[in-house]
Amino acid sequence: MDAANRIERSLASAVGLSRARGCPPGLAQAMHHAVFPGGARVRPRLCLAVADANGGAVPGLAEAAAAAIELLHCASLVHDDLPCFDDAATRRGRPSVHRAFGEPLAVLAGDALIVLAFQALLQGAAAAPARLPVLLDVVCGASGVPFGIAAGQAWECEPEADLSVYEQQKTGSLFAAAAVAGAAACGVPEEVWRPFGAALGEAYQVADDLRDALSEEEELGKPVGRDAALGRPNAVRSFGVDGAVARLQHMAALAAEAVPACPGAASLRALVRQEVKRLMPLRVPRVAA
Amino acid sequence: MDAANRIERSLASAVGLSRARGCPPGLAQAMHHAVFPGGARVRPRLCLAVADANGGAVPGLAEAAAAAIELLHCASLVHDDLPCFDDAATRRGRPSVHRAFGEPLAVLAGDALIVLAFQALLQGAAAAPARLPVLLDVVCGASGVPFGIAAGQAWECEPEADLSVYEQQKTGSLFAAAAVAGAAACGVPEEVWRPFGAALGEAYQVADDLRDALSEEEELGKPVGRDAALGRPNAVRSFGVDGAVARLQHMAALAAEAVPACPGAASLRALVRQEVKRLMPLRVPRVAA
Repeated sequence: MDAANRIERSLASAVGLSRARGCPPGLAQAMHHAVFPGGARVRPRLCLAVADANGGAVPGLAEAAAAAIELLHCASLVHDDLPCFDDAATRRGRPSVHRAFGEPLAVLAGDALIVLAFQALLQGAAAAPARLPVLLDVVCGASGVPFGIAAGQAWECEPEADLSVYEQQKTGSLFAAAAVAGAAACGVPEEVWRPFGAALGEAYQVADDLRDALSEEEELGKPVGRDAALGRPNAVRSFGVDGAVARLQHMAALAAEAVPACPGAASLRALVRQEVKRLMPLRVPRVAA
Repeated sequence: MDAANRIERSLASAVGLSRARGCPPGLAQAMHHAVFPGGARVRPRLCLAVADANGGAVPGLAEAAAAAIELLHCASLVHDDLPCFDDAATRRGRPSVHRAFGEPLAVLAGDALIVLAFQALLQGAAAAPARLPVLLDVVCGASGVPFGIAAGQAWECEPEADLSVYEQQKTGSLFAAAAVAGAAACGVPEEVWRPFGAALGEAYQVADDLRDALSEEEELGKPVGRDAALGRPNAVRSFGVDGAVARLQHMAALAAEAVPACPGAASLRALVRQEVKRLMPLRVPRVAA
């Protein structure tokens, strides 16, 4: 089964918990809306790519870790879209969760998706409980305090924030965790994978900033120019378009260099090059790699 | 060390994670405000009482489970108080988190407290990783879908809800989990403790409804009469004051009967009787037990 199918299947299995008789149907629908249809699923793909490059994962465990990370990402999007943050009417080309289901169910869907990430992990680790503590640690660290996505998002509430710390926590933490969790699912030393994941995360963040600044709303599926409107840190505002494009390529090169020795290192580096091509916004003149 | 100290110490250790350099200070303050000073800490006290009645807990593990459950409770209060739910200005006699720190930090503090519950559990289980999966399962089940507190709260968004299902999920689930987790921390069969925790939880819910209907705001530390104002299910509205008092005593008697055989069963039953006395609102004429 290819990576995309493994990810969708693992996510569907997790979200399916909400379809049990006795679970409020509105909450179940809001959670489903938040997760399906997905975006590019870059974080879970990264997790599976690292697991596949290492080999030896217990069946289902890497997929569960990938799902956990994507569920935390979806939860953060639901809460980020709320009126008190971005007040985003659309996400992935459809109404945001609070626009479709109301603010109370959006808050609760986000909460339940956070918990669901741990439920997915627990279920995936049933056949390999010895790998649960490290995976739990990796996933917690990426989502909570002191340095996870909740912390990153909270920098937007501070009078001053360091752009690099903000991005490392808000975006980088989950990418780094995806790579680390992919290795942890295989039982190989996992922390050596953090720099690779973090560099890729920074590349994605710069790509996202470029798309936010340059793309059409229709193409992006969410409102554009939001960072500027909200006065948020953004690589294009900091470095200009050319500077941001150069930074994206630099971070991708760093990521490729940071791939630790493993059976699938070469194909992982090829995957990075392929992703960078995909990430470059259509309206930016391509700079030679 | 007495139970209260063990609970506060375990909570302080968990919340202390947010004081690491590099964590946004506003988020750390909002999380601290949500957890300290606490209310009656009934759920973690229940967890420790069950653990102490069984004996044999790995040092720190029952305390970590107790803290995890209290952190999930605090998280749910922070989100329940938000303008889109209860819009509560006060909690425990002080401004609610969103009134003190703004809505964005209240959403994020709730999110980070959910994750912190799992971090506390992970830390507590370091010396007994074999007990982590069952504890994680218990805690997840009490907080997410299909039947945890997020599900219970989501019934408020449905056009129709079964009062008993609503209360079992919104309140009962965390009480049941507290009892079950206390046993799981000791490595004894844990699910036999669920009816005891669930019955106690229902008693607390009825007591809370009575206090909401009868108490003065000053005494309660939060706005009174909210259930009626919000059109929410409430035992006093369903059964009248006398009926609710009788129900509280019935549930407490059921809880006492449901204590499974264990070394400390007698003292646990005495504790239940003592709690019921404490829970009876001051303005209700005492009905003979």
